[in-house]
Amino acid sequence: MSVPVPSPDLSPFLAACARRQLDDRVPVWFMRQAGRSLPEYKRVRVGISMLDSCARPDLVTEITLQPVRRYGVDAAIFYSDIMVPLKAAGVDLDIVPGTGPVIAEPIRTASDLDRVRPLSADQIPYVTEAVRRLVAELGETPLIGFAGAPFTLASYLVEGGPSKDYARTKALMVSRPDVWHDLCGRLAQISATFLVAQVEAGAGAVQLFDSWVGSLSAADYATFVQPHSASVLEAVGRLGVPRIHFGVGTGELLRPMAAAGADVVGVDWRIPLDEADRRLGHRYALQGNLDPALLGAPWPVVAERTRAVIAAGAAAPGHVFNLGHGVPPDTDPAVLQRVVDLVHEEGSDIRRAARV
Amino acid sequence: MSVPVPSPDLSPFLAACARRQLDDRVPVWFMRQAGRSLPEYKRVRVGISMLDSCARPDLVTEITLQPVRRYGVDAAIFYSDIMVPLKAAGVDLDIVPGTGPVIAEPIRTASDLDRVRPLSADQIPYVTEAVRRLVAELGETPLIGFAGAPFTLASYLVEGGPSKDYARTKALMVSRPDVWHDLCGRLAQISATFLVAQVEAGAGAVQLFDSWVGSLSAADYATFVQPHSASVLEAVGRLGVPRIHFGVGTGELLRPMAAAGADVVGVDWRIPLDEADRRLGHRYALQGNLDPALLGAPWPVVAERTRAVIAAGAAAPGHVFNLGHGVPPDTDPAVLQRVVDLVHEEGSDIRRAARV
Repeated sequence: MSVPVPSPDLSPFLAACARRQLDDRVPVWFMRQAGRSLPEYKRVRVGISMLDSCARPDLVTEITLQPVRRYGVDAAIFYSDIMVPLKAAGVDLDIVPGTGPVIAEPIRTASDLDRVRPLSADQIPYVTEAVRRLVAELGETPLIGFAGAPFTLASYLVEGGPSKDYARTKALMVSRPDVWHDLCGRLAQISATFLVAQVEAGAGAVQLFDSWVGSLSAADYATFVQPHSASVLEAVGRLGVPRIHFGVGTGELLRPMAAAGADVVGVDWRIPLDEADRRLGHRYALQGNLDPALLGAPWPVVAERTRAVIAAGAAAPGHVFNLGHGVPPDTDPAVLQRVVDLVHEEGSDIRRAARV
Repeated sequence: MSVPVPSPDLSPFLAACARRQLDDRVPVWFMRQAGRSLPEYKRVRVGISMLDSCARPDLVTEITLQPVRRYGVDAAIFYSDIMVPLKAAGVDLDIVPGTGPVIAEPIRTASDLDRVRPLSADQIPYVTEAVRRLVAELGETPLIGFAGAPFTLASYLVEGGPSKDYARTKALMVSRPDVWHDLCGRLAQISATFLVAQVEAGAGAVQLFDSWVGSLSAADYATFVQPHSASVLEAVGRLGVPRIHFGVGTGELLRPMAAAGADVVGVDWRIPLDEADRRLGHRYALQGNLDPALLGAPWPVVAERTRAVIAAGAAAPGHVFNLGHGVPPDTDPAVLQRVVDLVHEEGSDIRRAARV
């Protein structure tokens, strides 16, 4: 079967990632566009747990496509959860509605490490299958592969679930660097395998989510995190697809996160994109960065902020419009639709004007 | 009655705040040193609610003194809660154990504003009384007055309690700036009255806690927050005591937070103090910034990190050692004792060596 492969010449998203953005289109997609805020998603999820939904190619395909159909965004993001590859590798965990991931036996000592075993592609046939179906359906719209980064995965495994301060994670990191690096090496293998499987099945780009890494200083990031994220991004880089690297509150970490092997750096809303571009030496494409907390504001405010993001993003050699973090569960899809339409209708004019 | 007034000549804490730090002592205190982590605190709080404990001068005095007695820190922090002045001003709220502040009727529209009335000093006689007792007991150890800043207070009033993303707060801010500024003006009056009462009763310094302001971009901070924090700090500044201004995740906000009228800028653990000093143009004393999440690590790690904080703090014209946020509830007091002793025993040598 011959599958149409999206190319930078045809995909505004891939062109922006490649720092070859044309001024006729600002591409846009939203983190968490597939899932929790869409009524059609809630309908197909009735009676099916999160982890079960991620293991069913028919559902993954449907849920991934829903926002593409609805909004006309420039990329699809593979519907999954950062815990899926850990579950597939045999870690005993669940995703509890209203709480998040819950790890049956947290990983805190050297002897716990045996419970984090390598992932092989044949343990995730439903991922390969779903990606194949998706690229056939998506045609010229690229599919972005999805995985959590070693630090963020480790934080769940060590804490046993979501955390406010990552105290156990940080304590392990600094007090047993040998255990920490062993753990993150294992997680890097798992993340890399999960992403490579998606790319080999046809994903045209990847995003590595290190959502909680902004809780670290730059020095600790460089010592304890960057090498492991770099090994994930390197494994994917060999396949030639663009790599997006994202975290929240990472103003101090943009350079080392870029240097870990990113083509596109995701930026949250705390820093304007032109400032992020300065910090990165005008060498990377940027993704972001409308504050998702503002989506509940009246439309004229959302529109003004959307325009400001596009204008600031014009400083960078490539700009993929996105939120600064995931779509909040209570977001009105009609607002996201208006954002997409504004970006598509006004984006190129705003970019041109901002660069005069 | 003549009360001994701490002076910069005698108090290492006040000398550091005044940017006249002598190399013979690095002063140290801890945010949240009074309260939740101390067994002697838990004993006196049995059967007494948080808000009730803050309204009893005998308890406030005892709880404020407990960490000074135990640790030998260089300053006391007035035991209270940021909600106390709002409660005193008539806002219907409670502090629910395990949850935090809960507002009976959140403030979200212009017509809600009438429920945020001015605070007068005669509504908080227990504060004045407790401060008087404390300064008499503390002698040469300064008492730091305590209040929440308008943004952080507003976030609780608008959300109705703690929040992860401050979506309602931000939506109000940007969509109804008139209501927002009216609300924050009222909160600034309340905070200022609360702090001025403490200073007039004898507090030798103040700290304005804008704990959650790091969720904003610098542009929104400048427009929506800084003027109100500035009016609080200005009211206190007329009384001549040093003003500490603190928030979490404020790497992008250090300059405007300093410019709001701070003498000492509190820094969390994400930025080394020498970098904070560079961003602030070497013009402010700094407070911080050991990561509280590391207090559970083995002592050699905590000691190494403590020394690194002192060394980086030597760059600033004044350094008050502290954590980068409050003492976690499960902290072992013995660890804090070792930190205090290390700062006192090794601090001056580390400072001198760092400046060679």
